[in-house]
Amino acid sequence: MRNEQLAELGQQLRVDTVRATDAAGSGHPTSSMSAADLMAVLAANHLRYDFGEPHHPGNDRLILSKGHASPLLYALYRAVGAVDDEELLTLRRSGSRLEGHPTPRLPWVDVATGSLGQGLPVGVGMALAGQRLDRLPYRVWVLAGDSEMAEGSIWEAAEHAGYERLDNLTLIVDVNRLGQRGPTRHEWDLDAYASRLRAFGWHTIEIDGHDVAAIDAALTEATATEGRPTAIVARTHKGRGVAAVEDKEGWHGKPLPDAGRAIEELGGPRFVSVDVAAPSDGRVRHEPPGDQPPAPTYAIGDEVATRDAFGAALAALGSRRTDVVAIDGEVGDSTRAAAFGEAHPERYFECYIAEQQLVATAVGMRARGYVPYATTFAAFLTRAHDVIRMAAVSGTAIQLVGSHAGVAIGQDGPSQMGLEDLAMFRSLYGSTVLYPCDANQTARLVTAMAELPGIGYLRTSRGATPVVYGPDDEFPVGGSKVLRSGDADRVTVVAAGVTVHEALRAADLLATEGIGVRVIDLYSVKPVDVATLQEAAEATGCLMTVEDHRPEGGLGDAVACAFADGRPLPRLIRLAVRNMPASATPEEQLLLSGIDAESIAAGVRLLVEQAVVR
Amino acid sequence: MRNEQLAELGQQLRVDTVRATDAAGSGHPTSSMSAADLMAVLAANHLRYDFGEPHHPGNDRLILSKGHASPLLYALYRAVGAVDDEELLTLRRSGSRLEGHPTPRLPWVDVATGSLGQGLPVGVGMALAGQRLDRLPYRVWVLAGDSEMAEGSIWEAAEHAGYERLDNLTLIVDVNRLGQRGPTRHEWDLDAYASRLRAFGWHTIEIDGHDVAAIDAALTEATATEGRPTAIVARTHKGRGVAAVEDKEGWHGKPLPDAGRAIEELGGPRFVSVDVAAPSDGRVRHEPPGDQPPAPTYAIGDEVATRDAFGAALAALGSRRTDVVAIDGEVGDSTRAAAFGEAHPERYFECYIAEQQLVATAVGMRARGYVPYATTFAAFLTRAHDVIRMAAVSGTAIQLVGSHAGVAIGQDGPSQMGLEDLAMFRSLYGSTVLYPCDANQTARLVTAMAELPGIGYLRTSRGATPVVYGPDDEFPVGGSKVLRSGDADRVTVVAAGVTVHEALRAADLLATEGIGVRVIDLYSVKPVDVATLQEAAEATGCLMTVEDHRPEGGLGDAVACAFADGRPLPRLIRLAVRNMPASATPEEQLLLSGIDAESIAAGVRLLVEQAVVR
Repeated sequence: MRNEQLAELGQQLRVDTVRATDAAGSGHPTSSMSAADLMAVLAANHLRYDFGEPHHPGNDRLILSKGHASPLLYALYRAVGAVDDEELLTLRRSGSRLEGHPTPRLPWVDVATGSLGQGLPVGVGMALAGQRLDRLPYRVWVLAGDSEMAEGSIWEAAEHAGYERLDNLTLIVDVNRLGQRGPTRHEWDLDAYASRLRAFGWHTIEIDGHDVAAIDAALTEATATEGRPTAIVARTHKGRGVAAVEDKEGWHGKPLPDAGRAIEELGGPRFVSVDVAAPSDGRVRHEPPGDQPPAPTYAIGDEVATRDAFGAALAALGSRRTDVVAIDGEVGDSTRAAAFGEAHPERYFECYIAEQQLVATAVGMRARGYVPYATTFAAFLTRAHDVIRMAAVSGTAIQLVGSHAGVAIGQDGPSQMGLEDLAMFRSLYGSTVLYPCDANQTARLVTAMAELPGIGYLRTSRGATPVVYGPDDEFPVGGSKVLRSGDADRVTVVAAGVTVHEALRAADLLATEGIGVRVIDLYSVKPVDVATLQEAAEATGCLMTVEDHRPEGGLGDAVACAFADGRPLPRLIRLAVRNMPASATPEEQLLLSGIDAESIAAGVRLLVEQAVVR
Repeated sequence: MRNEQLAELGQQLRVDTVRATDAAGSGHPTSSMSAADLMAVLAANHLRYDFGEPHHPGNDRLILSKGHASPLLYALYRAVGAVDDEELLTLRRSGSRLEGHPTPRLPWVDVATGSLGQGLPVGVGMALAGQRLDRLPYRVWVLAGDSEMAEGSIWEAAEHAGYERLDNLTLIVDVNRLGQRGPTRHEWDLDAYASRLRAFGWHTIEIDGHDVAAIDAALTEATATEGRPTAIVARTHKGRGVAAVEDKEGWHGKPLPDAGRAIEELGGPRFVSVDVAAPSDGRVRHEPPGDQPPAPTYAIGDEVATRDAFGAALAALGSRRTDVVAIDGEVGDSTRAAAFGEAHPERYFECYIAEQQLVATAVGMRARGYVPYATTFAAFLTRAHDVIRMAAVSGTAIQLVGSHAGVAIGQDGPSQMGLEDLAMFRSLYGSTVLYPCDANQTARLVTAMAELPGIGYLRTSRGATPVVYGPDDEFPVGGSKVLRSGDADRVTVVAAGVTVHEALRAADLLATEGIGVRVIDLYSVKPVDVATLQEAAEATGCLMTVEDHRPEGGLGDAVACAFADGRPLPRLIRLAVRNMPASATPEEQLLLSGIDAESIAAGVRLLVEQAVVR
């Protein structure tokens, strides 16, 4: 498209932005208007995309990291004919696909945006997939705002992209100088952004973001640049084209004061139709599985850490399924993800100590059809909470594995202990939370995770624990295992992970004292096995949960939730980590937190003596 | 101290590191040995600190960001006479102050470290306090590892420190080339770190980290550098001084294979005593409160958003208490923290869109005795989850305020909705979670937060809601308010925030149908008012929780927890946000999520019709 038309298209995108937000009565027209020329030139002359076939493997990826500029994206969709004018005007209405911030309810949106600073990290994941897995020539374009460049996640991504020489990735920074509350830190100091990005190994181009010829040249240069990602740092005006709001404070996130006049000032409505270039041909070739060593199994009574079983199972899964990838946060030797890396180095991605990028890489790769397992210590997954939250908003199925759960890690102390991870993962929409207690169970659950529809979380333990299940036992998601039961059970102890072994020891001890105890291994913390818990409640009247986790949000709450349908609840006792641990041996830790076998036994004896239970 | 002695001191720190970790049977000697010379020269010739008076206002601050090198820190404490040799050898034992990663159980440790990448952000908070609040000449020294430079939080801090020209801050990067699983991304490419930091406005010095003269000169240069923070990027050898482990992979986090021989190789035990320079005199002068406008109050029936009440209350609190500071993540106009900024600009800190730095600034300022309130959207506080978790490990009292809670925000959609924040904050050790429903209640709670001993969280709402309490009502932490009750109540509805108003509407509606409903405003979500909930359970037999939050970890779980002492539980019904919201009006959102008055009323009617309740 020629420059005059490009300028016309930019104005059209502005007009449509104003129209849509005016119809909605809310939204972010000024943030959209600053980037209109950037988007116009990109779509008309550089993007390769088949809007009729959003899953075409050769499609470029376009991520609107500044998700609040959604009206601009939707105006572009109108220009390319993907949505019609009627739909454009449904912006932000209930039932409309055109949400306040873009989500994958629209087939051309790969990932939801709106929490700033996440588009680039996810784009890095996609670009990595393009370069090292798909090996297709598609490009990844990320449009970011200037305010979001303050997010650390941007710099984790900048580092990763520079280091991996992702020349299929282009970042366009819309430097409109104004954040929502006033001037940004660097205002129009383009070099502040460019020099930082250059230091991280990027090629940078500084332009006037309203000069369509300059934009066109910059995008051409980005595409031609080899061996480095490119950032186009564009000086723009927020609210460009409408004098009442252009480059003025106080107009963030508000429709224009007089839409009719603004549209007139912008030259009125028009319809420049954009013919987006077709994607290049090419198909993703997943290598067929090669030699498939048998999945490892373990003999009952062996002592195996669930993290070891995880690593072995993931490596074996990787042999059976060549769409499985693993991502490490520089702790693969500890999480045992390294076993996958040794078996499948081409599908193993090192993110170093950058947990937001760790999870964002998984999100980007899932958007390209892979089945990612991202792993670090359970405690450090909290670092990526917002990225995981946004993955849930996207409906993206990513599998996360957190090792070193709970006080049972021992001497390293509380900074390394995952004690809030179950709460974090349970609260996420559509999540599945798994917490195995032995090696065979772990192996089964690792395999099952590949089929989960949403976010999956597996919690593994550092120390070795006895294998209690046979290699042919099955562990459906949403299930549980009753490990001890008898007609005279007076209490049900509900445990998971390391506390299963404590519960079994307590039950065996109490059995010698004539006190029957039912033990449930609640390996599926979400969804929870309502039927088995309700049956146990009816049979024993009292449930005692024991968890290597904070009292809030974990196993105890999961069990309570099984009785949230109005049926009478059983008596419920919760043993959990209520202290702030310090250094101590694993055994001491369990004792000090009151979640070891002796504490369980003492608690049950008390209930019996006080006749709280039958 | 002269160079020969400095070298001796460095060797001594190594020997003591080896001895302590050998006695412990675990720990990180090699990571300590790389930084021993850096720490020796810093302590002997540059640090100004009174170990007998850790709270001396003039003390420099020393943060071991690479917390796993704790043996080095403890070896230094021995050298300065703060701990004796006997205590040194208690490393990592249960009951010892010398934990695997440092915590404030030691009086010279301001903040716990061990989750990497957090020492610098917290140091930025302290340096800001030194420069803009305390106005004292103390310096902040942060010793970081090379691996942790991959964390985005480091770059949020680098940006903040450069922008604020914190020349009282020095970062020392111990570039020992080896992470825990192998080589780091940049190995010994010192310029990779230095060039990035320079781009962010830092002065940088690259040195051999085992050359004590070079270290001494660099620290002198750092102290003399004005207008910019300084980073000393030091090339070191992991495991320096012991050939069996020096610069070798596979020795992270393990005691040395033959401690006796290693100590011999290091020249044997010695005791070079370090006489640390005294801090400069000077006291912190908190300005006396000036004019104190009356705290704002609101008339019952007025429509006021709790975020508005928060901003006004915080500004008023800032007039009464000059130790209160407020920190914004570039959304102060939305959270209404801006009201504090207008009243007290000298105590208002803008962190831009960098939530980890937002919270770390609060942590650093609290360590300097201030009472910080850090605010952003509730959803975006998840970005700082790990920083908040570490603040809990530190036992640091910081106050966090999350606005735009729940689906009630309306059209902006799920990316902007805080729906998991209650779960996150409830699960933290020692936290307090508050969720007001009206303006007078908000004002009281904002004031009460200043006295909380740990992490406080206040959840505010975007839209206006009716004032239901008088200005003299009191709202103790751990309390609740019974807003409707009668002898014939058949169900108790437990609500907080926006759902209180829905519950009241439902109760009034049901009253006209002859169905009595008790309504509890559970504004203190943690701790929870056990007595009132148990009383309601006894009176009505059935509780229905209604929350603008995910079903997990929030109000429903908090209520269930009130019955976790083994007493019989009431029937419990939970209304919560179980869908993935899209754009819609606030009213539509509440309806679509089934937490509006009509949904509550319908649920209660069903319970009555089905004779689930009396």
